[in-house]
Amino acid sequence: MITINEHYTKLTKSYLFVDIAKRVRAFQESHPDTEVIKLGIGDVTRPLPAVAVDALHAAADEMADSETFRGYGPEQGYDFLRNAIAEQDYGSRGVEIPAEDIFVSDGSKCDTGNFQELFTQAQTVAVTDPVYPVYVDTNVMAGRTGHFADGRYEGIVYLEGNRDNGFVPPPPQTPVDLLYLCFPNNPTGSTATREQLAAYVDYARTNGALILFDAAYYAFIRDPDVPQSIYEIPGAETCAVEFRSFSKTAGFTGLRCAFTVVPHQIEVRDSSGTAHRLRDLWMRRHTTKFNGASYPIQRAAAATYSPEGRREVKELNDYYLENARIIRAGVNQIGLTSYGGVNSPYVWVDAGGRDSWELFDELLSSAGVVTTPGAGFGPAGEGFIRISAFNDREKVNTAMERITTALA
Amino acid sequence: MITINEHYTKLTKSYLFVDIAKRVRAFQESHPDTEVIKLGIGDVTRPLPAVAVDALHAAADEMADSETFRGYGPEQGYDFLRNAIAEQDYGSRGVEIPAEDIFVSDGSKCDTGNFQELFTQAQTVAVTDPVYPVYVDTNVMAGRTGHFADGRYEGIVYLEGNRDNGFVPPPPQTPVDLLYLCFPNNPTGSTATREQLAAYVDYARTNGALILFDAAYYAFIRDPDVPQSIYEIPGAETCAVEFRSFSKTAGFTGLRCAFTVVPHQIEVRDSSGTAHRLRDLWMRRHTTKFNGASYPIQRAAAATYSPEGRREVKELNDYYLENARIIRAGVNQIGLTSYGGVNSPYVWVDAGGRDSWELFDELLSSAGVVTTPGAGFGPAGEGFIRISAFNDREKVNTAMERITTALA
Repeated sequence: MITINEHYTKLTKSYLFVDIAKRVRAFQESHPDTEVIKLGIGDVTRPLPAVAVDALHAAADEMADSETFRGYGPEQGYDFLRNAIAEQDYGSRGVEIPAEDIFVSDGSKCDTGNFQELFTQAQTVAVTDPVYPVYVDTNVMAGRTGHFADGRYEGIVYLEGNRDNGFVPPPPQTPVDLLYLCFPNNPTGSTATREQLAAYVDYARTNGALILFDAAYYAFIRDPDVPQSIYEIPGAETCAVEFRSFSKTAGFTGLRCAFTVVPHQIEVRDSSGTAHRLRDLWMRRHTTKFNGASYPIQRAAAATYSPEGRREVKELNDYYLENARIIRAGVNQIGLTSYGGVNSPYVWVDAGGRDSWELFDELLSSAGVVTTPGAGFGPAGEGFIRISAFNDREKVNTAMERITTALA
Repeated sequence: MITINEHYTKLTKSYLFVDIAKRVRAFQESHPDTEVIKLGIGDVTRPLPAVAVDALHAAADEMADSETFRGYGPEQGYDFLRNAIAEQDYGSRGVEIPAEDIFVSDGSKCDTGNFQELFTQAQTVAVTDPVYPVYVDTNVMAGRTGHFADGRYEGIVYLEGNRDNGFVPPPPQTPVDLLYLCFPNNPTGSTATREQLAAYVDYARTNGALILFDAAYYAFIRDPDVPQSIYEIPGAETCAVEFRSFSKTAGFTGLRCAFTVVPHQIEVRDSSGTAHRLRDLWMRRHTTKFNGASYPIQRAAAATYSPEGRREVKELNDYYLENARIIRAGVNQIGLTSYGGVNSPYVWVDAGGRDSWELFDELLSSAGVVTTPGAGFGPAGEGFIRISAFNDREKVNTAMERITTALA
């Protein structure tokens, strides 16, 4: 008889975006003449870089000709892309990552969700709070948690980000096995300094933990002192996996391309103490359950590494960073304190004593602007909202004008 | 301390394609003037249908313009594709599958590999032998088997396909929970009749089992009496999930698009007996660990449903079916018995008392043609080879001329 994986029944139903949609609909009905501006969801809106568009066209033409047609590619990704990543994302910053340690995929959501499969169910998981829900939900599904109570799952170690620690919580006080980190952070927009990252690496090495480092927003870092990769910290290559994506950096949310770095240096053990190379385990998972990212999309991703592509990507990210600056200026003008939004596309706004939904409702009803209530990312997000810089300039300007006028 | 999922250590290392590559290399070194023709791997070689190429170009242009740019799409796939699938793959054959039961993905390898996550580890799994390795390996990784011995994993129920049953084994003699089936079959090229499929459905309903039906090759079925979908059998909508792919049918192995049908009628239970809708569980898995298939690729897939697209796809499949006919005629001419290759792109060749590798070596050394030894698909594949019809006509003709000349 079919019996389900009961860990699925522990998952809380997320009503966050359903609730948001319901409130937006109600507002729209009572204000039919107001254009609602959405600064909630973290999705890009600007056109794809021209080099990527050209690469898509060229690849489409290749697929139309039997001489240049491509069928199955390597599951790990084509060398033209893995080599470009190794050289330009890492080598150019003095970090040696061989192309063989890079696994191309169709998205960091998949990669961060799937990676936990490599480990035994008994592993202890630590996440920050507030947090991107995928890290938590996929471990719930795998049975690494107890039930949900008071906004948190039993068995998970939550590291609370708050005003005092600038939303970069210190490493756990107790031993954990898997430590999920995301910097620049979603949702708080915080970045970690070299010293803060070094403390995590030191923790991982001392406690035999593995860091799962989500660097999806690295391209928004402009400060030369803020590390873009966990591998800028010596020793991280023995204890950290890094996830990166073309989604936010190159506007690929609709195209789907990402990659995961699994350094060949990382050794993990089975219960008898025998060492295994983590890269070999991920290789086995990746080649057994995945058939490679789309060839035209990999060509488009590779195109962003040309000199022209680098320039276009930087322009694209600069555009969103300027949006973030405008958002910060606006919320500060109405007397609210903000975090993030520098080296990051997310502005984390202190609701000034209100709860998340109160400020959300205020911005929606008075200005027709949609944001995301921080409480949706965990209990420590209560009292904040996230404003996303991913929208067109004109809309961001209008949104902030409306907000500053209404709430001045 | 990091401890691995030890079920990974049970996986046998597959040397099949490594061994093949080694033998091909050795042959090539000793025959530098012979062009080796590869009829081993099941990968398409013909150009993409023109409608799909046009759709890729159009989508690339959409992504270049902020008015038409698309970011994240629905994880389950765009309605334009799900509706086309519902109407044309199912509705047109009298099978009612609502678009809401269709989940678009980037590949059937992922879908058939991931689906088992929804069930408890204690489920008993049945597969045919010979078999596509993904069904087995992903259940090994999930801990549903014991160790590997004598070519098989303990705990899996193997249904042996052989000459007597025409490589369509009868349903299990004992109760199982998850029953993987693939028709037209990879590797044997066999198809199941309506009566044979009805027996599986009857078995599943009687025993409370779930059929995981891989229909990746349905488009090669030309015989109007052979069902293309498990849902042509009444009652299957209560006990069967169907996997389909654009890879082999429309030449998408390099593009990546597939879908899974999870009928809303299927109910599964937790250990307390509470019923859950299987579709809801897959929806949860799909939306938590996947971010939708690439938009341009979904457009290309949808284009194959236009009248012009249907015509082009049929032509493409007819081309490979004619290759299969040529292969069958060739192997029969040298006195070997073949199975499959009708309503299927794979020809399963009885090695006539030789073992799989013997015939493989003979075809390679005497004709420079690469095939796949049947033993690589399981013990019941010993004594057979698989010849794939996925290649250009000229190469198939040359291959069979060489074989018939050398082995006449």
